[in-house]
Amino acid sequence: MQSKKFILSEKDIPQAWYNVVADMKNKPRPLINPGTKEPLKAEDLYPLFSKAASQQELNTTDRWIEIPDEVREMYRIWRPTPLVRAYGLEKYLDTPAHIYFKNESVSPVGSHKLNSAIAQAFYCKQEGVTNITTETGAGQWGAALSLAAKHFGLELAVYMVKISYEQKPYRRSIMQTYGAEVIASPSMSTKAGRKIITDHPNYQGSLGTAISEAVELAMSTPNCKYVLGSVLNHVALHQTVIGLEAERQMEMAGEMPDTVIACFGGGSNFSGISFPFLRYKLSGERDTRFIAAEPASCPKLTRGVFQYDFGDEAGYTPLIPMYTLGHNFSPANIHAGGLRYHGAGSVISQLKHDGLIDAVDIPQLETFEAATIFARTEGIIPAPESSHAIAATIREAKQAREEGKSKVILFNLSGHGLIDMTAYDRYYSNDLANYEVSQEEIDNNVKNLEKII
Amino acid sequence: MQSKKFILSEKDIPQAWYNVVADMKNKPRPLINPGTKEPLKAEDLYPLFSKAASQQELNTTDRWIEIPDEVREMYRIWRPTPLVRAYGLEKYLDTPAHIYFKNESVSPVGSHKLNSAIAQAFYCKQEGVTNITTETGAGQWGAALSLAAKHFGLELAVYMVKISYEQKPYRRSIMQTYGAEVIASPSMSTKAGRKIITDHPNYQGSLGTAISEAVELAMSTPNCKYVLGSVLNHVALHQTVIGLEAERQMEMAGEMPDTVIACFGGGSNFSGISFPFLRYKLSGERDTRFIAAEPASCPKLTRGVFQYDFGDEAGYTPLIPMYTLGHNFSPANIHAGGLRYHGAGSVISQLKHDGLIDAVDIPQLETFEAATIFARTEGIIPAPESSHAIAATIREAKQAREEGKSKVILFNLSGHGLIDMTAYDRYYSNDLANYEVSQEEIDNNVKNLEKII
Repeated sequence: MQSKKFILSEKDIPQAWYNVVADMKNKPRPLINPGTKEPLKAEDLYPLFSKAASQQELNTTDRWIEIPDEVREMYRIWRPTPLVRAYGLEKYLDTPAHIYFKNESVSPVGSHKLNSAIAQAFYCKQEGVTNITTETGAGQWGAALSLAAKHFGLELAVYMVKISYEQKPYRRSIMQTYGAEVIASPSMSTKAGRKIITDHPNYQGSLGTAISEAVELAMSTPNCKYVLGSVLNHVALHQTVIGLEAERQMEMAGEMPDTVIACFGGGSNFSGISFPFLRYKLSGERDTRFIAAEPASCPKLTRGVFQYDFGDEAGYTPLIPMYTLGHNFSPANIHAGGLRYHGAGSVISQLKHDGLIDAVDIPQLETFEAATIFARTEGIIPAPESSHAIAATIREAKQAREEGKSKVILFNLSGHGLIDMTAYDRYYSNDLANYEVSQEEIDNNVKNLEKII
Repeated sequence: MQSKKFILSEKDIPQAWYNVVADMKNKPRPLINPGTKEPLKAEDLYPLFSKAASQQELNTTDRWIEIPDEVREMYRIWRPTPLVRAYGLEKYLDTPAHIYFKNESVSPVGSHKLNSAIAQAFYCKQEGVTNITTETGAGQWGAALSLAAKHFGLELAVYMVKISYEQKPYRRSIMQTYGAEVIASPSMSTKAGRKIITDHPNYQGSLGTAISEAVELAMSTPNCKYVLGSVLNHVALHQTVIGLEAERQMEMAGEMPDTVIACFGGGSNFSGISFPFLRYKLSGERDTRFIAAEPASCPKLTRGVFQYDFGDEAGYTPLIPMYTLGHNFSPANIHAGGLRYHGAGSVISQLKHDGLIDAVDIPQLETFEAATIFARTEGIIPAPESSHAIAATIREAKQAREEGKSKVILFNLSGHGLIDMTAYDRYYSNDLANYEVSQEEIDNNVKNLEKII
């Protein structure tokens, strides 16, 4: 564990977020209004999101978007986060690779999610919104938004995927400690929830369903906005503080990553660490490789189709051009609840389609093996989600050893796993499985997508 | 939550620990060998502890004790820790007081305990020890030592107080993730454990009993040493990195504390934050006030007697001159498991006896109220132990408001509460009590102490 930290000072917190869309030659295809089948305008999003977020969502021209002072002020609670050279892990793997990780687990809620939660809550407050609502999988996003909502004096209702509500009661308690209301999803409180409970009485929920419920509540409640923790462009935008800090810290370390790795659910932490480095690939200056590490049980980037699809299970959201397993895909109950989502955002999907980023899928048991190695060599118990990035990093580092090639790997430690210890218990008790998805299941689930538009 | 952090760089990690005993005019009375009734020499401790720890324990002359490079190297994983000006809390309390906290919760195990765990594991390894054993209350110390033992390649067995083993299964899992063996105490694996199980079949354990079991295992196992997480001088010594860093950070903030506050179980985090500031009180330079915040259910400093007593329930340890409730005191099952200990260490006890430090006792419900205020104003969910310090701070800050007096308060946030969410759940469900201790219970429990020596 002779790790080395690279530490920035508070004045190094970025002044602006990086909007990768401005630099993309092939822009992502537009979001579509499912009623009119026309490309969405920002105004179409105003009923659902804050105006600022809506405008950021569709901004394809401004490379840099200023971070409001109130948001930077809140970032100072835990930012800048450390970049760490993982000497302990390198030594254990006996690899010539240099391994770095950006430690986003040091936030008070234990993950990177606070970067966007603060920004979105601020914009809602600024526009006079009083109530907000959201979904959460493992609870990382819900915990972050609970803290942000409390700070800005907003009332918050969180739809938490039922399987996580039961598997991760501590994250529910954390949200309640910050003053939020938490509802297990699917619930009886919405039409979307009632329908899926009726159709599938034992359904344990998914992010797609929870999003439907939160959207429905927002649309039917006065002065209430919906806030999303991943997938959309403005969320990815807010997360770019991760990569922007990491870039300066890699400069301190005297090298730049050949490979950047992050776990992948809806894309928020992957985008956050990758996009700032991707701008040098888009400009032709550097040939960095980007690897999204997704669960083998929810493999949209590696095995999904590139199609317009809904962002939620009930079909309330705009149509998004995405790599998707179909919005009715029902992911297995893996412990990485934050990665149980059927699709990728439009920007990531376009980048993947254009060969600018890669993806790998990792079985659950391999992620817990990687997590244990990391805990014992670097001292930090990682979140099951982040463990996908660690497993992909270990694969790359082993390959470097086999090829006798030095390379520089940077991964994002999106969160710690201190709230996920039941998952570790089950792994050590040989009580976890890998949950492969059959091609037939995927084919069946995506076969009707072409009819959507 | 407009907090301000004061950040040091890695080169500011202290080079030496501060040994307050060297500066005390009234030295603590000596530890006594219960067999011979003679003052202990370092050699008497060698069978139990590493030689280095034994010598530090009895060192009354050296003010500064160098921190080994291997230990400082490990400290760099998370040290220096931030000092934070708690503007959010100040504003909420509408107080003229300036409130600062040292944030020891940012360690990978979530508490200050790692400061001494690393040092003690290092000394054991250096001296060729292969196996170590310890006790843990809430599991903060056990988690820290598990990480340190894994790093130095030592096998570790942890006796975990049964009530915490059941209340806090996540901390048990954390220890196992780092590779330690965890046994609920009292257990059938030791004579001390068997006796108390037989005498009190439903006994939920205490730190005193767990210490007896660990000591017994160490004494009966070849090449095995015992490692303690609090109470003793060498543990307090290792924790002084907290206060030494805080002193430099208060200089950055441009003021010095009038009052220093920490929670109190065996004294490790209280000593760590206090002793470096106390040296200016001992030298007459500053009139700082020091407040140990202990649970009303385990009030040794406020209501115990100053007597020689055993450090453990079975009477295996040397006799320690301590404020004590009697080594057979059975503390109520409060959630601050780390504070459920019958006595204070010899140095703290002498300082208290000489009027150099103060103590307050705080009922359980007040600590959870304080914790909730802190989480909602500063964003960090505190450990139930640390919440005692926060409650004492809030009392002081309110008094400053009533008196219209500005003062500077520094408290130690010894750990976060993310593993303690069941306790919060119970508090919000009105399912927690205050557990006052009657004078009769204390009197009965201490009445035979004078016969010990």
